[in-house]
Amino acid sequence: MISVSIIGAGNVATHLYKAFIKAETISVVQWYNRDIRKLAMFQSDVETIDNLSELKPADIYIIAVSDDAISHISEQLPFENRFVVHTSGSVSVYDIDKKNRRGVFYPLQTFSKNVPVAMETVPICIETIGKKDAPLLKLLGKSMGCKTHKVNSDQRRTLHLAAVFVNNFTNQLYRVAHEITESEGVEFDILKPLILETANKVQNISPYLAQTGPAKRNDKKTIKKHLKLLENEQHQAIYKLLTASIKKTQGVSNKKVVKNKTK
Amino acid sequence: MISVSIIGAGNVATHLYKAFIKAETISVVQWYNRDIRKLAMFQSDVETIDNLSELKPADIYIIAVSDDAISHISEQLPFENRFVVHTSGSVSVYDIDKKNRRGVFYPLQTFSKNVPVAMETVPICIETIGKKDAPLLKLLGKSMGCKTHKVNSDQRRTLHLAAVFVNNFTNQLYRVAHEITESEGVEFDILKPLILETANKVQNISPYLAQTGPAKRNDKKTIKKHLKLLENEQHQAIYKLLTASIKKTQGVSNKKVVKNKTK
Ligand SMILES: NC(=O)c1ccc[n+]([C@@H]2O[C@H](COP(=O)([O-])OP(=O)(O)OC[C@H]3O[C@@H](n4cnc5c(N)ncnc54)[C@H](OP(=O)(O)O)[C@@H]3O)[C@@H](O)[C@H]2O)c1
Ligand SMILES: NC(=O)c1ccc[n+]([C@@H]2O[C@H](COP(=O)([O-])OP(=O)(O)OC[C@H]3O[C@@H](n4cnc5c(N)ncnc54)[C@H](OP(=O)(O)O)[C@@H]3O)[C@@H](O)[C@H]2O)c1
Repeated sequence: MISVSIIGAGNVATHLYKAFIKAETISVVQWYNRDIRKLAMFQSDVETIDNLSELKPADIYIIAVSDDAISHISEQLPFENRFVVHTSGSVSVYDIDKKNRRGVFYPLQTFSKNVPVAMETVPICIETIGKKDAPLLKLLGKSMGCKTHKVNSDQRRTLHLAAVFVNNFTNQLYRVAHEITESEGVEFDILKPLILETANKVQNISPYLAQTGPAKRNDKKTIKKHLKLLENEQHQAIYKLLTASIKKTQGVSNKKVVKNKTK
Repeated sequence: MISVSIIGAGNVATHLYKAFIKAETISVVQWYNRDIRKLAMFQSDVETIDNLSELKPADIYIIAVSDDAISHISEQLPFENRFVVHTSGSVSVYDIDKKNRRGVFYPLQTFSKNVPVAMETVPICIETIGKKDAPLLKLLGKSMGCKTHKVNSDQRRTLHLAAVFVNNFTNQLYRVAHEITESEGVEFDILKPLILETANKVQNISPYLAQTGPAKRNDKKTIKKHLKLLENEQHQAIYKLLTASIKKTQGVSNKKVVKNKTK
């Protein structure tokens, strides 16, 4: 049995709590939040507290609060030599106060409180300062049904950065598409199957091989038409930059002529 | 029963053929390709030809060849007043020779020959010059189990442009993430569940509401760290441009301070 206490009541804390209570070999000792009202709906199932000094012994303390509050919270912990981890992709493991054993338990997924996530599909990146602490974090992830990945700080930061590209930036491209379709009175919904299939495709083949479209074909006529259609300057700039990026990746020279040109 | 003949043997033609023969109320009369060897594996199931003059009567002729070849092929058709459509998102319906009745049957999805696609999830955008021809195209789509959408030329072009954003450009962001992770010796595979979840999320909520991350939070510290980590200038430019785009969409002023900042 692994005993854990959770600190914070946001998106990640809530999803972790739900996964922990489902797991047979994990017990949640206590759940802390500075504003205890946010834990009200769970208080019949777990001991909820809003005072760090009430924290009881546990195998792992998970600090799942905003990045900027991690360091401060870790200083307030009223004990030493216990095992304390945060859940952030970008915060250093050394931001946790050194009076305790330190680690990171970073679930590489996007969480919103009310959007269910199949936790067993979430990869957990783990990092510990003490080598002896790694197996316990690994076991915690495994007990939730997750794959765990041991990473160093540079690798975790790199994954967090890459996640910004495949999540935040990709989502913004969806948003741009929404703006473009709306401006012509077409339903954005029509694009949804394509959005899913684009994500599905790279589950099995590399993004390099999955690429298609006018930039890869160096289809100058279509690229020109598209740039003319785009009225928003920022949309135009995104189109140009990503077209250039595709051309570079795919080794398309600007001088190559369009294939199959018969006119 | 709707009788169709297919012209071309590429990605779209092949997926359409497979969907047509599965449908009970569609019969494929003939399948043409200039290079008949590409149709060899189907010749026991359908009449394959490489000479347009052999084309027999059919309710619909579907020209699924490269965009630049559509006009030329349509001129070579040895008949008049029959119903001829192409499958392109960007080519004008008027590119089809006017001796025949004209339309567009544009499946809004990404097709590769060897990647199976659940055809019943593919939205079909239809357009016809003659109003009387629209119901037949609609019925063709419906017979394949697809949703059809009547669009005009501007709307189809807009959808094609938006598709470039959600497919080609999104895929390029995946590629950039691949380059970033590879350079640190981390597996790109760890990002795959996040890629799927990002696409899944906007099936139910708008991209605007789905947005998260440092740009939306105006978390300048993280943005600065990320820009420093990015060694490739083009990756940096993409990061800056999409961060600016998110800020604009989400109404983040450059002067707003980071929330929850406790240090
Ligand atoms: N959301 C994701 O998709 C995701 C994914 C992977 C990792 N992470 C990481 O997980 C951690 C939590 O993220 P989240 O999305 O769950 O955050 P969140 O939903 O915004 O919740 C933040 C939590 O931190 C608490 N908090 C903020 N400032 C505090 C302070 N000064 N003192 C005490 N508590 C404070 C909040 O308390 P109140 O309830 O009282 O306001 C709240 O419980 C972050 O390190 C984040 O980088 C997030
Ligand atoms: N792929 C997609 O994801 C997708 C999605 C929606 C719409 N579309 C549209 O569907 C159409 C076909 O695209 P695709 O991806 O199927 O193309 P593709 O796989 O590249 O196949 C092109 C086909 O066109 C034929 N062709 C090319 N030039 C020709 C010429 N001068 N004369 C006669 N035949 C010629 C080729 O014949 P050979 O076999 O002899 O070379 C081949 O059969 C295009 O209009 C495209 O815009 C494509």
